[in-house]
Amino acid sequence: MNTEELHHLIKEMTLEEKIGQMTQLAGYLYEESSSDVTGPLSGVNAPEFLDSTNGSIVGSYGAATIREIQSNYLEKSRLKIPLLFTADVIHGYRTIFPLPFAIGNSWNVDLAEKSAEVAAKESAVSGIHLTFSPMVDLTRDPRWGRVVESTGEDPYLNAEFSRAFVKGYQGDELGTDPMRIAACVKHFVAYGLSQGGREYNTVDVSERELLENHVSGFEAAIEAGVEMVMTSFNPVNGIPSTGNKKLIKGLLREKLGFDGVVISDWNSLGELITHGVAEDEIEAAQKALDATVDIEMMTFCYAAGFQQLLDENKISMDSIDASVMRILKLKNKLGLFEDPYRGLSEEKEKEVVFSDEHRQIAREVAEESIVLLKNEQNVLPLSTDKKVALIGPFGTDSNVLGTWYWRGEESEAVQLLDSLEERLDKDSLVYAKGSDITEGNKDWLEEAKAVAESADIVILALGEHAKMSGEAASRSNIQLPEAQLELVKKVKEAGKPMVAVLFNGRPLDLTGVVDEVDAIVETWFLGTESGHAISNVLYGDVNPSGKLTMSFPYNVGQIPVHYNHFKTGRPVEDGSEFKWLSRYLDVPNEPRYSFGYGLSYTTFEYGDMKLSSDTFSKEEGLTVEVTVRNTGQVAGKEIVQFYVQDLVGEVIRPVKELKGFEKIDLAPGESKDVRFTLTEDMVRYVHSNLEKKSDPGRFKVFIGSSSDEVQEKEVRLVN
Amino acid sequence: MNTEELHHLIKEMTLEEKIGQMTQLAGYLYEESSSDVTGPLSGVNAPEFLDSTNGSIVGSYGAATIREIQSNYLEKSRLKIPLLFTADVIHGYRTIFPLPFAIGNSWNVDLAEKSAEVAAKESAVSGIHLTFSPMVDLTRDPRWGRVVESTGEDPYLNAEFSRAFVKGYQGDELGTDPMRIAACVKHFVAYGLSQGGREYNTVDVSERELLENHVSGFEAAIEAGVEMVMTSFNPVNGIPSTGNKKLIKGLLREKLGFDGVVISDWNSLGELITHGVAEDEIEAAQKALDATVDIEMMTFCYAAGFQQLLDENKISMDSIDASVMRILKLKNKLGLFEDPYRGLSEEKEKEVVFSDEHRQIAREVAEESIVLLKNEQNVLPLSTDKKVALIGPFGTDSNVLGTWYWRGEESEAVQLLDSLEERLDKDSLVYAKGSDITEGNKDWLEEAKAVAESADIVILALGEHAKMSGEAASRSNIQLPEAQLELVKKVKEAGKPMVAVLFNGRPLDLTGVVDEVDAIVETWFLGTESGHAISNVLYGDVNPSGKLTMSFPYNVGQIPVHYNHFKTGRPVEDGSEFKWLSRYLDVPNEPRYSFGYGLSYTTFEYGDMKLSSDTFSKEEGLTVEVTVRNTGQVAGKEIVQFYVQDLVGEVIRPVKELKGFEKIDLAPGESKDVRFTLTEDMVRYVHSNLEKKSDPGRFKVFIGSSSDEVQEKEVRLVN
Repeated sequence: MNTEELHHLIKEMTLEEKIGQMTQLAGYLYEESSSDVTGPLSGVNAPEFLDSTNGSIVGSYGAATIREIQSNYLEKSRLKIPLLFTADVIHGYRTIFPLPFAIGNSWNVDLAEKSAEVAAKESAVSGIHLTFSPMVDLTRDPRWGRVVESTGEDPYLNAEFSRAFVKGYQGDELGTDPMRIAACVKHFVAYGLSQGGREYNTVDVSERELLENHVSGFEAAIEAGVEMVMTSFNPVNGIPSTGNKKLIKGLLREKLGFDGVVISDWNSLGELITHGVAEDEIEAAQKALDATVDIEMMTFCYAAGFQQLLDENKISMDSIDASVMRILKLKNKLGLFEDPYRGLSEEKEKEVVFSDEHRQIAREVAEESIVLLKNEQNVLPLSTDKKVALIGPFGTDSNVLGTWYWRGEESEAVQLLDSLEERLDKDSLVYAKGSDITEGNKDWLEEAKAVAESADIVILALGEHAKMSGEAASRSNIQLPEAQLELVKKVKEAGKPMVAVLFNGRPLDLTGVVDEVDAIVETWFLGTESGHAISNVLYGDVNPSGKLTMSFPYNVGQIPVHYNHFKTGRPVEDGSEFKWLSRYLDVPNEPRYSFGYGLSYTTFEYGDMKLSSDTFSKEEGLTVEVTVRNTGQVAGKEIVQFYVQDLVGEVIRPVKELKGFEKIDLAPGESKDVRFTLTEDMVRYVHSNLEKKSDPGRFKVFIGSSSDEVQEKEVRLVN
Repeated sequence: MNTEELHHLIKEMTLEEKIGQMTQLAGYLYEESSSDVTGPLSGVNAPEFLDSTNGSIVGSYGAATIREIQSNYLEKSRLKIPLLFTADVIHGYRTIFPLPFAIGNSWNVDLAEKSAEVAAKESAVSGIHLTFSPMVDLTRDPRWGRVVESTGEDPYLNAEFSRAFVKGYQGDELGTDPMRIAACVKHFVAYGLSQGGREYNTVDVSERELLENHVSGFEAAIEAGVEMVMTSFNPVNGIPSTGNKKLIKGLLREKLGFDGVVISDWNSLGELITHGVAEDEIEAAQKALDATVDIEMMTFCYAAGFQQLLDENKISMDSIDASVMRILKLKNKLGLFEDPYRGLSEEKEKEVVFSDEHRQIAREVAEESIVLLKNEQNVLPLSTDKKVALIGPFGTDSNVLGTWYWRGEESEAVQLLDSLEERLDKDSLVYAKGSDITEGNKDWLEEAKAVAESADIVILALGEHAKMSGEAASRSNIQLPEAQLELVKKVKEAGKPMVAVLFNGRPLDLTGVVDEVDAIVETWFLGTESGHAISNVLYGDVNPSGKLTMSFPYNVGQIPVHYNHFKTGRPVEDGSEFKWLSRYLDVPNEPRYSFGYGLSYTTFEYGDMKLSSDTFSKEEGLTVEVTVRNTGQVAGKEIVQFYVQDLVGEVIRPVKELKGFEKIDLAPGESKDVRFTLTEDMVRYVHSNLEKKSDPGRFKVFIGSSSDEVQEKEVRLVN
């Protein structure tokens, strides 16, 4: 359709038909009795008129099912506007990739894009038109379970990944490629600041901090053409996003220029009432529409309120029509008016979903997502002639897909024990569970110790249950569960070298592990190919190359701790013992493991940093160059990182900000020149009047292998 | 002098003389060689001209010393403008009262006022003109060591105490009463929000939250006529207070109406450079003067910068003169031009300082500051016929004065063991240290267990060293030190009833104590009369009547946790087990002990709440009344608490807000009617446009004995 036809269509629509487009229902309401759409709706008190007017569905899947729902619906629909099918395809459809957080640790945006492309393809053939991904909420609080869906603590890196995921889902031309689906970036905005890391909790943030750190992921997604934005549960400045006009209409649409569809989070429009900023559904509807929220997910405030609000002139039909137009434009862009079944294909579904090719890509992503945190005396990689004791609940635990794994099957995921069995002789491998994830007992402990004693080396497969991270999975204690710490202690008694392989959805306090073991392999939740990726790293078929994108604190009391913190007036410098400095009595100011940190099986030597000039200007940047050499025995990938510090600002500036990185692959002995260009636009920041601009003056540039291992030089921005 | 004379005086002053008034130096610079003011200044690179122009001194003490410094100075000073002597008299001069935080727990504002009056008197006779007290920074993070100087988590209660302290120091007519001193309220503003509870750390806060929760203590102090305000170290909106024009000139002076002297915190003007918002001292001077900071403490940016800034027309002489006028007005109000020695008196000093009368008042305040947290099977009060084992480092540790105890002498403080020895026969009391504060050993543990076995009941005197709270004493772990937890475990083996008496400067995570002992007596740091107050409570001479003004979290990972949190969209109601709610997986949303909680040796029964009406308006409030009866066997004091909730707001409202309280004293069987009036001005709040006003609509009123034990009724505010 062209725009004129869409306008014409809207003119023909009744208010109920418009409300239908602006309401999203859960798929289960249809599937229980897909031939009779009427029935199940009553279960959630949905108004009956939605049966034939509802505009979109969340959570249905499968080509056959979706075909049936769509065709039944179109029969009933007066204007034959096809349903939009949406789903939470977060890290893969059925071929499950590592969690977004894990993918972030790969620092490989091409692989991130590829993972989204695969997910889009499997979704598209199964009838999905849009995924509620990526989540780009910046987070610095590992208590919050949803860190697993983010890519960490840095606004620049988050933006890079946001762009990659959106491009991966949507491709370059969403309309012409039925194997791509629309993306919905979420959650707008500052959800990652939930107080105390407690899910759905209050957020308080200054406007400047909001703009400085929490919108970059959204800006990048909008630049990449993202079709939809989801509002967050949390309030900003006392008003929940979903009813926050200043935020959605003002910041998102007017300032950031987003002109696509805005959808509420599940029930979040209704939660304006629970939050106590709307007296009832009618007031909630008014606030959300004023904010330009186009689609209400799984509440019925628009249905309850629009007629009365129109009668009382509290809202205008123009606002409603503007929302409906945005929704219809998206459907039109997807080509649904021409083909309501779009990429859906029962045959292709069989061929594409969980294909060998997709699993191969999933393994590649998984391998690059692993971070080697510790490797004393090069205990890793292992050699197959050593007898290995695999001990711990994650040797065989099937929950390696992490949270939100959509159509993933736990039974299809490769366990660590399975992959070791594929690789090793029977005599070279023994296994003991040692402990459940949260419960243990004496017998298991004794058995574990005995098994350890019988081997040359121990692999401890430890972690959090996948349900201990993700949505509504905040922890006040971020250590490994006590039972597993007991297990570490007990196995340690056997006196064998120990390698901890960690499965978890957040940075952990590794007290009770880090000093006890010789090596730590951080694997997060790696998805379908988990076991293969891990054993490839353990045995050196793959050289680990991930680096942390979020700091590991010493303890929960140190939160928030992140590399890009603001300068204080009393910094601790050169290990000063002076009392009156900004610090704790009992832990350092630095995290245990910093942003950008990660080891390799080889070593990289950085040459001296060379600058093209010690000044830069609006007209001309300066280049910073370094030669990196693989000085070890095996090939390896290194993530070369480029940071900047603004030494004097109108407002306090971070001690360091990532402004570029490059992941390079070097054969033993090989070297490469890596070059970054520092330009004026990279050092613009949000001033106290909320204007984004740069100030002339002194800066530091840093290059290094981690945020805490850099060389530096001072430069000037001149007018 | 009259205002005209002051103007005349300013006209006569050179720039250096003006800068002198605007600079504060530490007393030690004078005392090392008080007959020669010139010498020591060079040690801190102070400009020489300050020798004869400096306007005020921080930290000198003693009538004789101050008399000498003043007279030497006046000899040198061309214009004979007397020095202002200031000091950190935080909770007493030499008669040391409980820490402000402890006094807050008394909920007795009259006693708070009295403590300040005593401190003022001892200070005045010793030559002090002004104290840097009270600190009214609202805090909800027990990691922060400076919670000891605040009165807790509630903006209403903080304002009540702020007013009381200011009135206590200043009296009604500061000018006519030489036994009163000027007060300086601090730190403006939001210092209590230091990130991660880490001292001097970044603060980020929305303007609305700032106004809603963090200025009430300052407003109350200003209403009470406070003479001085100190800026805080922290930034707000990216700019440190001390150079923050919007905050100091805009909010403090123009919006809150403060027209007295603003002083920087120690070195905080210089820290504009360290924070990276000023290139050098000159820019720092410009920013601070623009912000209307009148006195610079212990840095010399004004001295370094004013001439150049005047030459470049970056500042005006009018701004400088306005600051000098505010300073001279304060000196004039204190009567220093007439008598530079004011209340100072070597004779009175001997008579007044640490007098029996003052110690008596200190004991009374200490007794009311104690909070009884637990008392299973009424194990307390103790009877003198039971043999007691006193165990733990705080039986004899002399650091019971807490932080900032000015001229207090640890040796003059009454230890718990001493006070028990005064009370008990030799045979009825045994003592073992059991552990140092942070270190222990096996022998001590075994001895402690043996001592416990020999007695009928155990008193465990446990806590944090006084240096583990206060300024620059943040802890990431807020449990008792491990050595003492070991001690509790060991002594528990003796199987005797255990009473924990806690000495600490913050709410603690009491894991490892709370389930092990039968009773917990929270004493904070009670000052000079510590031991007497505690044993009076332990033996029932005094019935404990304090209640917490800051929540005790279950663990550090639960921070921030406070009773007056904002409503969420997914609250946990009626113990729901539903997953998708705002909570942690591993601890409740509520703290272990809530704001307003505290036990008594008697019981109080609350009758049904009676309302004069179920509506109130701008013209007419409504009264809420309840009858409280002492239903136990002994007299006791109860703190009756009145809370309100605004059910629907333009912005999200707290679940409960304290709006009144009354501490009543009831004989056994006695009852009293307690009445609160709810008026429209009490329910005004800061809207998203930063306007403070009320909204008509539904409210809840609550009366109860604690924030989590209340009865409630719904009322309406009508137009």
